[in-house]
Amino acid sequence: MHFLVTGGAGFIGSNMTDRLLSLGHKVTVYDGFITGHREYLKEASKNPAFNLIEARLEDEDVLGEAMKGVDFVFHFAANADVRRGLEHPLKDLEQNTINTARVLEAMRKNGVKRIGFSSTGSVYGEAEVIPTPEDAPFPVQTSLYAASKVAGEGLIQAYCEGYDFQGYIFRFVSILGERYPHGHVYDFYKKLKEDPTSLYILGDGHQKKSYLYVGDCLDAILTVIDSCTDKVNIFNLGTDEYCEVNDSVGWITKRMGVTPTLSYSGGSRGWIGDNPFIYLDTEKVRALGWKPKYTIEQAVIKTVEYIMENEWLIE
Amino acid sequence: MHFLVTGGAGFIGSNMTDRLLSLGHKVTVYDGFITGHREYLKEASKNPAFNLIEARLEDEDVLGEAMKGVDFVFHFAANADVRRGLEHPLKDLEQNTINTARVLEAMRKNGVKRIGFSSTGSVYGEAEVIPTPEDAPFPVQTSLYAASKVAGEGLIQAYCEGYDFQGYIFRFVSILGERYPHGHVYDFYKKLKEDPTSLYILGDGHQKKSYLYVGDCLDAILTVIDSCTDKVNIFNLGTDEYCEVNDSVGWITKRMGVTPTLSYSGGSRGWIGDNPFIYLDTEKVRALGWKPKYTIEQAVIKTVEYIMENEWLIE
Repeated sequence: MHFLVTGGAGFIGSNMTDRLLSLGHKVTVYDGFITGHREYLKEASKNPAFNLIEARLEDEDVLGEAMKGVDFVFHFAANADVRRGLEHPLKDLEQNTINTARVLEAMRKNGVKRIGFSSTGSVYGEAEVIPTPEDAPFPVQTSLYAASKVAGEGLIQAYCEGYDFQGYIFRFVSILGERYPHGHVYDFYKKLKEDPTSLYILGDGHQKKSYLYVGDCLDAILTVIDSCTDKVNIFNLGTDEYCEVNDSVGWITKRMGVTPTLSYSGGSRGWIGDNPFIYLDTEKVRALGWKPKYTIEQAVIKTVEYIMENEWLIE
Repeated sequence: MHFLVTGGAGFIGSNMTDRLLSLGHKVTVYDGFITGHREYLKEASKNPAFNLIEARLEDEDVLGEAMKGVDFVFHFAANADVRRGLEHPLKDLEQNTINTARVLEAMRKNGVKRIGFSSTGSVYGEAEVIPTPEDAPFPVQTSLYAASKVAGEGLIQAYCEGYDFQGYIFRFVSILGERYPHGHVYDFYKKLKEDPTSLYILGDGHQKKSYLYVGDCLDAILTVIDSCTDKVNIFNLGTDEYCEVNDSVGWITKRMGVTPTLSYSGGSRGWIGDNPFIYLDTEKVRALGWKPKYTIEQAVIKTVEYIMENEWLIE
């Protein structure tokens, strides 16, 4: 199969690219290198089945050309900076919602009809049902990021109904592992490198979060795509557990060998729109035979070790 | 209070404008007259508390200026042509989702924080629960129109959480009554004027639909805004009944005094993305003391009578 991976120089996209190449597929990475890293494609670029198109999704002509001969699109390109959404209120709309529409249009015009989409567990807002299943009560959005992803989901679903597309929508918890580029492990690691004696934590440290190791995430995505033939396929991806921010801090500091004094901003939320408890029901994907190989603790430690070996990432 | 009504020269917007003026409010209508009608504002324009800004939502400077001194925005401007969404796949995104973002940004920049939004019962897709309550299972979108409205809802919700807005989201069934500009009553009336002897109906005639009279719709909206003080307030608006397309055809033909031979395209849907059964649970708004004054049959007949008196609409 010939896959096109938008955001293929990013965290999940580059890991998926390597995986698809290892499975013998042809992969075209489409990336504008706004947040992507060339280093992530170093191995892939040695493979003759790999092709890189360096362009933005806004370059609709290039995007259309890129679709020719493609069988399946993984649309991973996105603004993933959930926390700072309020500082630039239109960025999520432009980079997530509108660019998803651009990808769908480029596909439609070129007869490409299968798409995998990285949505987010944040679309459940402050869920009333925990663990939260895919058919939880119609949620209220609490961040511009999640709102932009709900909008992307809706567009894909409408293309499935209207233009005979097949859509695979994955609502992720936060993903950890190799090439992890930002988020709490990154932030804490960076702060502790600068000052290993103290660590300031947003919120009260009791926010409950769920994480998934990137390799397990890829396994789940490929299991779903191999197994499911519905028009619209929606799956939560996560582990069957959660941790508190304090747990994660403990694992990170232990692995780094530091013993900082902890202080807290206080309150149940790290920032406006932060969700104090994300925990997804993953029964649906587990019923396909998938289960994660790594616990949250292992995923956090693997991430710390990856950053240790790639400190250029925090510079 | 000073209200700004986007789409104020449209069906629901102009009716709301007249209502707000009659209640003694100041009203600024903001309309680009793409689908709006000047005739709808004839009465309003005689009122000194009425002000018209003829501009498009894309004119962000004008929109920002228009927000100055406004207390509450009714954002009714939208592409409401549900059926032809597939012919112009980006129109709903541009006119509904992106323009909602423009309205929200203009409000934020000018300190206006209260918004009422016309969403749609179509956001429930092919609902699993009928009658469908506001907290129905997280739906799958089946039209670009509904997808664009879900996206607008999400944006408003995120602004409520992030920028301390207060949002009133109304998920309408189809609205009927004076100034009704398009939809099945309009289409059937027009066809029967051209040829009263036969009528071709999309679908099998058994699609179940729910309608609400525009006056009842306004009553409900104003009841909600007067009664509800939550950050995000979401209400279904509809009658406690539904009809089949065939019922509606019967009422229309009877009122017009014609007896056409009926023929059908067949199938359970009138078009791709058409929902064969829309029926909303309106318990939540009824609990506030509101109830509709007119049945679906009465609303259909009032609409036919309005078109009879305003045949310029179908020309």
